[in-house]
Amino acid sequence: MCIDISANTRGQDHVDAIEAVINQRPGAQVRRISDRTFLMHMGGKIETTSKVPLRSRDDLSRAYTPGVARVCLAIAKDPAEARRFTIKGNTVAVVTDGTAVLGLGDIGPEAAMPVMEGKAILFKQFADVNAWPVALDTKDTEEIIAICKALAPAYGGINLEDISAPRCFEIEERLRDELDIPVFHDDQHGTAIVTQAALVNALKVVGKSIEDVKIVISGVGAAGFAIIRLLMASGARHIRAAGRDGVIERGTVYAEEHRNWIAHHTNEEAFSGSLRQALAGADVFIGVSAPNLLTGDDIATMNEDAIVFAMANPDPEVDPDEASDHAAIVATGRSDYPNQINNVLVFPGFFRGLLDSAATGVTDGMMLAAAEAIASCIDDHELHPGYLIPSVFDPKVAARVADAVSRAARQGGVTRS
Amino acid sequence: MCIDISANTRGQDHVDAIEAVINQRPGAQVRRISDRTFLMHMGGKIETTSKVPLRSRDDLSRAYTPGVARVCLAIAKDPAEARRFTIKGNTVAVVTDGTAVLGLGDIGPEAAMPVMEGKAILFKQFADVNAWPVALDTKDTEEIIAICKALAPAYGGINLEDISAPRCFEIEERLRDELDIPVFHDDQHGTAIVTQAALVNALKVVGKSIEDVKIVISGVGAAGFAIIRLLMASGARHIRAAGRDGVIERGTVYAEEHRNWIAHHTNEEAFSGSLRQALAGADVFIGVSAPNLLTGDDIATMNEDAIVFAMANPDPEVDPDEASDHAAIVATGRSDYPNQINNVLVFPGFFRGLLDSAATGVTDGMMLAAAEAIASCIDDHELHPGYLIPSVFDPKVAARVADAVSRAARQGGVTRS
Repeated sequence: MCIDISANTRGQDHVDAIEAVINQRPGAQVRRISDRTFLMHMGGKIETTSKVPLRSRDDLSRAYTPGVARVCLAIAKDPAEARRFTIKGNTVAVVTDGTAVLGLGDIGPEAAMPVMEGKAILFKQFADVNAWPVALDTKDTEEIIAICKALAPAYGGINLEDISAPRCFEIEERLRDELDIPVFHDDQHGTAIVTQAALVNALKVVGKSIEDVKIVISGVGAAGFAIIRLLMASGARHIRAAGRDGVIERGTVYAEEHRNWIAHHTNEEAFSGSLRQALAGADVFIGVSAPNLLTGDDIATMNEDAIVFAMANPDPEVDPDEASDHAAIVATGRSDYPNQINNVLVFPGFFRGLLDSAATGVTDGMMLAAAEAIASCIDDHELHPGYLIPSVFDPKVAARVADAVSRAARQGGVTRS
Repeated sequence: MCIDISANTRGQDHVDAIEAVINQRPGAQVRRISDRTFLMHMGGKIETTSKVPLRSRDDLSRAYTPGVARVCLAIAKDPAEARRFTIKGNTVAVVTDGTAVLGLGDIGPEAAMPVMEGKAILFKQFADVNAWPVALDTKDTEEIIAICKALAPAYGGINLEDISAPRCFEIEERLRDELDIPVFHDDQHGTAIVTQAALVNALKVVGKSIEDVKIVISGVGAAGFAIIRLLMASGARHIRAAGRDGVIERGTVYAEEHRNWIAHHTNEEAFSGSLRQALAGADVFIGVSAPNLLTGDDIATMNEDAIVFAMANPDPEVDPDEASDHAAIVATGRSDYPNQINNVLVFPGFFRGLLDSAATGVTDGMMLAAAEAIASCIDDHELHPGYLIPSVFDPKVAARVADAVSRAARQGGVTRS
């Protein structure tokens, strides 16, 4: 007799342990072990499919030669027609160099592909956007910029992904200046928008205002930098940002340009000290850094009704259970705790809105509108310390984000139409 | 009362004429004219779709974070695993710079996209290969080479398309040397293979052998050059190749490297003269050049049982009806005459074979095997002057080509596995 057993495991050790236990039973023997995650990835997760039938010579002569020549000529005459008659109007490049993939670091472009393909299917599933992985075998900033510019004719937008800081900042800024399609860096902007959305609702729950709260950020990489900029655009005035060596201060000159920007724009009372010390009396903690930097005792030094977003993955900056003993609100990046702060809530709808409005760029106005749109998916009467953020499967989210982004694009005049 | 009328037209003048005729009828009025070819292109012809379900958090946690990290790490450990767990194993880049699109010339990357998308759907339809259009906004040879190299991690092969000569030769050669995935230039190799296939069967019909026939080629661009090389690889010994200024001769130094190659390898009797003059006494004419260069009288100067492949598009080098008065066999690139010599017979199956065998390059052996495979789709007893080449809808074609190419790849040791 053969039986299939399915089990969720914590890792290979756990698999080995289960196998050993089964093999120890009299008469029982494990024949074959397969892994659902690897099986799901066999042959890749995306494919290209035709939207038009090719059943006859007649179909061929329209979709390909000789008929296609007329469509080519119409676009040659007016390149703006590319949005109507090619995939450009609904297609996004997901560009990486594989240098900062998940928490895994510089694993290279081949190994980054499963994440980029995953992103592509999320784009499709949640917002009907075609997305294509562009995993580049180069780390050279200038070359990455040149490649994105050369690829642009086929795409309506570029989503930069998992490119390490500080190169990601220059790549994004240069492409924003030099391209007429919008450029979004998910690790920066996606994270900043969903964090902002969660904060909007958290502040409603505790009854504090963005202008008044004292905010401490842990992590000054791509995500931290973008969070700080969006917080400031939304009115936040009291921000302390800590890197590995403590809070960023005015007067210090940092090797990286974006840290100097942070030094000039935050920490107005010139506080000097560690993350832990900075936390005393703060209203909001936002972590996009590393696991287990803080304890419950540290959270206890925060102001009353503290808000803690500990988003390091897979292990948060502080144990969520410990944090809950002292904070009014705790959110993480994990799906097994309440309040998962997840970029998937942002990028599909955001690009849907960019494509629908033929947007030429990304503005703070669009990002704040997207954050408000996500926050609005939870009605005030449903709002609760354990329910700040909608589920990624909530169909309202992408539609509202898309709508908010298109509207902001049109209002801001950041659109081609 | 409203009625829909569908009509095939020769062009806008014809549409206008039909409209005028209808409007002249008492009580009749044309309300709206739509164009089926343009309608078919609305929003582009391809899309990206997910191969895996995303119905629950559990699905998400396998296809995306955190589960995907294990797949990434497996590839980081052994990049060859990319062929199993990403789209690489079944995906081809269709790369163009839009400089030599159909007969339209340098229309730019946006305007080239409908052809590249058309190519992508043919790849899928005929051989289940995922193909993605890469339309580059640069004409710089070095930049195109660098971009293809940088893009390679996601692809199992590169199909170069509609890049003008002589840049296409350098791009192809350099990429073949510098990449470990196969590089195929359809305008060269696809055309050469299908021409070779048609010639194999044509020679059977007239009972002549490749070693003995005198062949005249008109056109020494990408297609002509590749045809000459493949003809020679298959044993052809008597070839004269004519450009715009007459037959290419030894002793003359040409500005383009590939013309010098042709000068050194063809026209062994040092013939000097025009295309027309070269044709006298020839057994085979192969035209990949320009419309209406020859008349029936020119074809009449050829040897008995002449073979004429007049493939200029949309109008052949000689009127096919006139040619038929003097030649035993006439083939063209057109679908409205018998014997359409069409690259669609080649590239889908060819790449299917390259991907199936994880081939690292393209050899003459593979190309000749593919030509024989196409020719073999017509049994000897079916073979006829008007039926040399199978239909593009013949399901045997791609399967046989794929099989022949994989076998040749393995025999030639040009494979990774």
